Amino acid sequence: MTTQVKDFYTAVKERRTIYTLSKESPVADERIQEVVEHAVKHTPTAFNSQGARAVVLLNDHHDKLWNMTTETLKEIVPGDKFESTQERMDGFKNAYGTVLFFEDMSIVEGLQEQMPVFADNFPLWAQQSNGMLQYVIWTSLEQEGFGASLQHYNPLIDEKVKSEWNIPDSWKLIAQMPFGKPAAPAGEKDFQPVESRVQIHK
Amino acid sequence: MTTQVKDFYTAVKERRTIYTLSKESPVADERIQEVVEHAVKHTPTAFNSQGARAVVLLNDHHDKLWNMTTETLKEIVPGDKFESTQERMDGFKNAYGTVLFFEDMSIVEGLQEQMPVFADNFPLWAQQSNGMLQYVIWTSLEQEGFGASLQHYNPLIDEKVKSEWNIPDSWKLIAQMPFGKPAAPAGEKDFQPVESRVQIHK
Repeated sequence: MTTQVKDFYTAVKERRTIYTLSKESPVADERIQEVVEHAVKHTPTAFNSQGARAVVLLNDHHDKLWNMTTETLKEIVPGDKFESTQERMDGFKNAYGTVLFFEDMSIVEGLQEQMPVFADNFPLWAQQSNGMLQYVIWTSLEQEGFGASLQHYNPLIDEKVKSEWNIPDSWKLIAQMPFGKPAAPAGEKDFQPVESRVQIHK
Repeated sequence: MTTQVKDFYTAVKERRTIYTLSKESPVADERIQEVVEHAVKHTPTAFNSQGARAVVLLNDHHDKLWNMTTETLKEIVPGDKFESTQERMDGFKNAYGTVLFFEDMSIVEGLQEQMPVFADNFPLWAQQSNGMLQYVIWTSLEQEGFGASLQHYNPLIDEKVKSEWNIPDSWKLIAQMPFGKPAAPAGEKDFQPVESRVQIHK
């Protein structure tokens, strides 16, 4: 889609959580839409059920999301701990946009009715597939010069989000990904010994 | 890591489910181990908890997995429907190897004790993160010239797998990915209109 894109392994290696983001974009908004649509189209889903959904919020919509999240947290976080919460929320709000990830639960329920033998599995496979989509969009945004992180203020904000952006009732909010131009590099990352995580039998 | 690797977007677009696989490998077994370890190392996990696990089965180990899966299914699939099951199992057995995906539930439980406010979320985030790892390994294997598909015979085979390969008790089996040299192209894939899956508010 563009020419400055990394090879697959480099993209995997260099994808990181970036918290310090600015309200700038290295690309046109149409390009953001294009890479999100590309990810949604090509990321696999159980039985090609295509239940994953993405909602991109930019400009006032992005600010509104983090304002409503801040207000929601203010109601439940003790007053003496709210300062650090406010700082975190200001950080996300200072980014360029946010991708909201959903699963359309009507798709999951349809699969459960069609194939009752896998009824317990479909909700788990939807979570796995949604994780794949989060990963592909995260890494895609990085190809475009953005940094991003993955946040989870669901289910606290679900009702407000659905009402503000007229989201279908069957869409369940799974994650929020603020993104913007990186204003500071990723932090250090610890790795456990890979031998404790991978076995090979040959 | 190699030079014939696709750019990120092309890798995303071209990753497909490949069922017809041969018992050949385009690369050395050490290279398979290397790309699996690279994926496990760099795929993100909630709070960098690194609970995802991968076990690669090659040669007799791979054959044994599909023999034991076939035997397990023979006990529960009605006799008149077993022929198609046997054919499916023979297809997987005819591949070069299998990656087993696990989550170490002791990591999830540790997080639940440390951060009880997110206790209900950690198992879901582990599923999402495991999905990310499945995706990265799937797409990595394709960079090396393999085809792969994602299968789920858990929990039916969990106990036999754990006992055969001495898997720690706390590792929960999530998915199985048979891979081999593609012997037939991917099938047709239907795509829903992307407008029904992605919204942008700007």
